[in-house]
Amino acid sequence: MTVNERIETLRKLMKEHSIDVCYIPNEDDHLSEEYTADYFKCKSYISGFSGEAGCTIVTKDFAGLWTDGRYFTQAEGELKGTCVTLMRMGQEGVPTALQFLIDNTPEGGTLGYDGRVVAASVTRYLTNALKAKNAKVVSSLDLAGEVWGKERPAMPQGKLFVLEKKYTGETAAERIERVREAMKAKKADALVLTALEDPCWLFNIRGNDIACTPVSYAFALVTLRKVSYYTDKAKLSEKVSAHLKENGVTVRPYASLAKDIEKLHGKRIWASLSALNTELYAAIADDNTVINEPSPIAMYRACKNKAEIRNIRNAHVKDGVAMVKFIKWVKENVAEDTMTELSAQDYLYARRAEQKDYIEPSFPTISAYQANGAMMHYSASEESYSRVRPRGFLLVDSGGTYKDGTTDITRTIALDTPTDEEKKLYTLVLKGHIDLAMAKFLYGTTGNNLDILARGPLWKIDIDYQCGTGHGVGHVLSVHEGPHGIRWGMGTPARPAVKLEPGMVVTDEPGVYLPHKLGIRIENELLV
Amino acid sequence: MTVNERIETLRKLMKEHSIDVCYIPNEDDHLSEEYTADYFKCKSYISGFSGEAGCTIVTKDFAGLWTDGRYFTQAEGELKGTCVTLMRMGQEGVPTALQFLIDNTPEGGTLGYDGRVVAASVTRYLTNALKAKNAKVVSSLDLAGEVWGKERPAMPQGKLFVLEKKYTGETAAERIERVREAMKAKKADALVLTALEDPCWLFNIRGNDIACTPVSYAFALVTLRKVSYYTDKAKLSEKVSAHLKENGVTVRPYASLAKDIEKLHGKRIWASLSALNTELYAAIADDNTVINEPSPIAMYRACKNKAEIRNIRNAHVKDGVAMVKFIKWVKENVAEDTMTELSAQDYLYARRAEQKDYIEPSFPTISAYQANGAMMHYSASEESYSRVRPRGFLLVDSGGTYKDGTTDITRTIALDTPTDEEKKLYTLVLKGHIDLAMAKFLYGTTGNNLDILARGPLWKIDIDYQCGTGHGVGHVLSVHEGPHGIRWGMGTPARPAVKLEPGMVVTDEPGVYLPHKLGIRIENELLV
Repeated sequence: MTVNERIETLRKLMKEHSIDVCYIPNEDDHLSEEYTADYFKCKSYISGFSGEAGCTIVTKDFAGLWTDGRYFTQAEGELKGTCVTLMRMGQEGVPTALQFLIDNTPEGGTLGYDGRVVAASVTRYLTNALKAKNAKVVSSLDLAGEVWGKERPAMPQGKLFVLEKKYTGETAAERIERVREAMKAKKADALVLTALEDPCWLFNIRGNDIACTPVSYAFALVTLRKVSYYTDKAKLSEKVSAHLKENGVTVRPYASLAKDIEKLHGKRIWASLSALNTELYAAIADDNTVINEPSPIAMYRACKNKAEIRNIRNAHVKDGVAMVKFIKWVKENVAEDTMTELSAQDYLYARRAEQKDYIEPSFPTISAYQANGAMMHYSASEESYSRVRPRGFLLVDSGGTYKDGTTDITRTIALDTPTDEEKKLYTLVLKGHIDLAMAKFLYGTTGNNLDILARGPLWKIDIDYQCGTGHGVGHVLSVHEGPHGIRWGMGTPARPAVKLEPGMVVTDEPGVYLPHKLGIRIENELLV
Repeated sequence: MTVNERIETLRKLMKEHSIDVCYIPNEDDHLSEEYTADYFKCKSYISGFSGEAGCTIVTKDFAGLWTDGRYFTQAEGELKGTCVTLMRMGQEGVPTALQFLIDNTPEGGTLGYDGRVVAASVTRYLTNALKAKNAKVVSSLDLAGEVWGKERPAMPQGKLFVLEKKYTGETAAERIERVREAMKAKKADALVLTALEDPCWLFNIRGNDIACTPVSYAFALVTLRKVSYYTDKAKLSEKVSAHLKENGVTVRPYASLAKDIEKLHGKRIWASLSALNTELYAAIADDNTVINEPSPIAMYRACKNKAEIRNIRNAHVKDGVAMVKFIKWVKENVAEDTMTELSAQDYLYARRAEQKDYIEPSFPTISAYQANGAMMHYSASEESYSRVRPRGFLLVDSGGTYKDGTTDITRTIALDTPTDEEKKLYTLVLKGHIDLAMAKFLYGTTGNNLDILARGPLWKIDIDYQCGTGHGVGHVLSVHEGPHGIRWGMGTPARPAVKLEPGMVVTDEPGVYLPHKLGIRIENELLV
């Protein structure tokens, strides 16, 4: 089916179900947005836009794709020839997707979507906003999925594996105990874990459902007496099953969490409504009390214990060996004029893969020659890559997931004697990088307080970089993990700054990006 | 009367009026706290404690004085021999004053105070909290004032003077127009101005009611058609009266604001409930809508216009002349062994007074020799001062109010060849001072982002200073004027960080304070 045919089919289904407006977001049923399983890419299937951000909205006579500035060029190309209008998020006159839903659902009409992929907090907001029009939300219809039908990819079935105590420093049973202490402090009877990383951390389990991130599609429910892990049994080896049993964890079918929540009559349930999907929220009864706060595991994950820190250091030593071999190879071979961005990144992948306990890249490598380095999210592909010549810079942002830790490192390699301008810019980036790395500060300091150290040397010559200076890094989990970061625009009510706590790992990655000219970034991970 | 007799008299009055708990705060009827007229010092009159922070609370069988860490030593001395208990604010086990009021008003009882000196927001909070006990607030009784009786100082009657357009860059009529634009944007019919600085700024008037701050006790009420200035006629010269008339300002008796607010039936009134006293709040009727937001004039005052900036620079040139003469005199005369902290500050006062358009000191000078410099709010007095010897440091924090601007400057003068430790500490303070002064930053940056520049060099050697790095400075008004500042602990919901806007003036004053040893502070004003 072409995109236009898919939309026509969707409109027929909308008519059958009396749906006026159909909302198809980007998130999965855990409300992850950045990396999701193909099963959840309904937004892309219906609109034809393959980028990882935004949403699709279809009405009787309109189909729109919302996405942000990073993707405008890509979306323009992919939407060409379809009936889908590109809605450029953030530009003047373009309503937000939620505002559009509210404005375009007619009086007494119905807005429909798949409640599994929409946060409870969003459904509450939309339901309230539509009341004024006597319009309603139906959150039980996956119409885009119906259109996709048999062609739709299955849910991933990546095998789970145990991350031994020597890597995590704590048994799953010990971690469960920690969580229960937090629950008691909040007088919570049950805790619903929806973030993909949370059950992995809690049970010392890793998975293989998403490229470059060793997580698994699963939920968990912790009560003071029982711990349940909602996953597909096919993912479990005997070893994993035994490990779970040993730590007191009951395995339940992935889809049965809602039913289990329904059984918690009258209980106090801890669940963050911005991280809980609408289907799960619907399982909470009126006699339940909801403790609408972030999962305590986010902070546990952020603050690494002694064993994790020791292991992360070890992973960096191995990663450093791979990087040094790589840089030596680049310097020695660039003059032969056969190197490409792809051959360089392949060489680096191979060096990491040689290291002990290597699992996979921690994210897709950015191997960007010269002007390509100015694009912060550049990715070379078979269809489009540059040759690497013996002049200018090769910017390589890459990392590995090892059983002992996750790395994220950027080096900008001079391929020839740099020009005076290149030297000056590189030196200022390095100065900011070092100033932040050397920072000594009192408890209570946030990334908001420290950002100027990295950015200051560049601001002095009127150069800024349009991104944060640093992000948290998980332990053998996601390479981007909050809640902390190094960013100057935090500290507002909407974006509270998080205190830097001992054991937090955060990147330090100032850069200079001159469009069509060059990119320089120097990145290491720092330990607070 | 002794303090104990005053408290006994107060308790008799409390009994007559059926008041169980009497609250006597530190604020005046404008809710200023730092510098207030003697008329408002009931808290000090009743307790015997002369410091400028805290409050007194009296019940049938308890009298307490709440104050903060800066004043513990002073309060211990002054309360000795009285029945007043010192309540050390912030220490474990010491309830806040408001919590004490709530806890100690009996079931069905009455809490009484003078509503003129308590914010509407505080009265709302207390009234709600006491409802649970069926207890109530009576906010119309100035019992401490009754005890004080004829001995009570009168309200100050300082003469007003006009600050000409050459100093302010705008006429009063132009400023009134600016305020009306802000009112229209908020659909406000009336704006109540309670901060002492607001009418001064709006009408280009200065006063002489409070030492070291050229403000006057007055309110103002701006509607879209009328502007009223609530002040005592005795303060007005012919010139001031003519100036007000020329700019369309009606003069009304100081006490008549409440009555005029009562006349605003059904109108939308802009007034900040944390800056509006309870008596004025009581004049607002149920059919009024209150726009509970800060006065727009705070930001107008903070962002200086071109003429103000030119004038402030000029004031600093003159102030610099006085400072240079002073430092030369100190260096040349310290060896004679006759200098004291007082003779030094007197010499400096005299040098400033020689300068053109000088009005008064902008705050009481801190002239602190050696270890005295380690006390951030030290003040030498006839009863207690140190001689200045030809060794170590003399720290002098001082400033002047001139018709063209307000200065605030600190120099730490080496009286002999400094030791290695003194050199090192002085250099690090200067380094932080310069790093902040040289900062270049993007719009959107707050003092929260910049503080590390001043503090960083000291943090590196494990030294911190227990105060902010910088405060806003008014234009021929208060030497401490927000809403901006340079402080690292902002950016929380309770203490939002304010963006630094062009035209803001802020101090840059890092320091080192080694108790019983030395104090080093270097302070200039910076222009954003």
